[in-house]
Amino acid sequence: MAPRSNYRLPKIPEMTIRRLSVYTRCLLQLEEDGVRTISSQDLAERFNLNSAQVRKDLAYFGEFGVRGIGYYVSGLKAELQKILGLDREWAVALVGFGNLGSALFHYRGFSRQGFRIAAIFDTDPGKIGRSVDGVPVFAIGDLGREVKARGIQIAIVAVPSEGAQAVTDELTAAGIRAVLNFAPSRLKASREVRLKNVDLSIELETLSFYLAKSAR
Amino acid sequence: MAPRSNYRLPKIPEMTIRRLSVYTRCLLQLEEDGVRTISSQDLAERFNLNSAQVRKDLAYFGEFGVRGIGYYVSGLKAELQKILGLDREWAVALVGFGNLGSALFHYRGFSRQGFRIAAIFDTDPGKIGRSVDGVPVFAIGDLGREVKARGIQIAIVAVPSEGAQAVTDELTAAGIRAVLNFAPSRLKASREVRLKNVDLSIELETLSFYLAKSAR
Repeated sequence: MAPRSNYRLPKIPEMTIRRLSVYTRCLLQLEEDGVRTISSQDLAERFNLNSAQVRKDLAYFGEFGVRGIGYYVSGLKAELQKILGLDREWAVALVGFGNLGSALFHYRGFSRQGFRIAAIFDTDPGKIGRSVDGVPVFAIGDLGREVKARGIQIAIVAVPSEGAQAVTDELTAAGIRAVLNFAPSRLKASREVRLKNVDLSIELETLSFYLAKSAR
Repeated sequence: MAPRSNYRLPKIPEMTIRRLSVYTRCLLQLEEDGVRTISSQDLAERFNLNSAQVRKDLAYFGEFGVRGIGYYVSGLKAELQKILGLDREWAVALVGFGNLGSALFHYRGFSRQGFRIAAIFDTDPGKIGRSVDGVPVFAIGDLGREVKARGIQIAIVAVPSEGAQAVTDELTAAGIRAVLNFAPSRLKASREVRLKNVDLSIELETLSFYLAKSAR
């Protein structure tokens, strides 16, 4: 295993990054099952992946396969976690604690991958000043102070559409570096902030596409 | 505009389908703004897309551009909605009405795109038999009956990990055609059912990848 020391390669497709996340989950599963080495073919077959795609995706980051052996499960998992920034904990701000915010707060997948919600922000006076499972709820106006004090670099935005852009602007001013937006509106952020809009209805539309297609 | 009559082309990348959803949203926005025609360059610039990518994605489905004019906004929007199956309403079952299910139920993006939650299913006796904004809550055991009675083809699974596979199996038996799974576990379904696993932490991981990368 000889990963390249410099990951700053020109353009890594976002789908490759997403697939690295999937591979990491598969490797975790294999590790739990006591599997120590696996070929790209077996990996692909077992998790319904494409083995050529696996090799191509990994090749962006180095040479991980060993001839005649395949991949070392734990070693590759650790490398991918490092590449994805999952070898450390990230303090996350959750902005908006309505239905969706509350669901995201309790979503177990986040903490499992090292994303710790360190502070919640909301506009509801009935929520501000309380704490949820030990996590304090602040007013939106406290964003600047708390983001700095708590070393928060990532924010999850789960406020209604109308307020999402204003919140993103406040987060930017507070020095946040990445925003994951769940509000159903496309936001804009400055170049220094990495913004990702999650549109949950797109997931449904890929399904309706296939259903509509098979009906044609 | 001369769309091909046969959409059954060999392999359309899922990312293309996802982008068609994005283009549809952009075109809706343009229509609201009173824009009647637009070139692929202007479309790309205005919404921060890649114009070559736009043309390539659309080319899977036909010739939509008109020389010297570009795209007719309303016409292209209608074509894309048809391709995505958004020219009709889909009855959707929501299985699991906890935090996440409740958030998804109220997510405005779904109904806006023609996905109507027609029935909710849960195991909580305190919820079963009630109705939420006019939508009835049933026991999981009623899936088979209600899916047929209500012409439901798509299900959203928002139950805890442990129960997700059993629910998917019941949905399959009930004749559902597509499942959107939000439970943080990868499910398996038979070939007749189109299954899409939504892993919300993957979205966070694409962000931590870029933050970790810039720190290297």
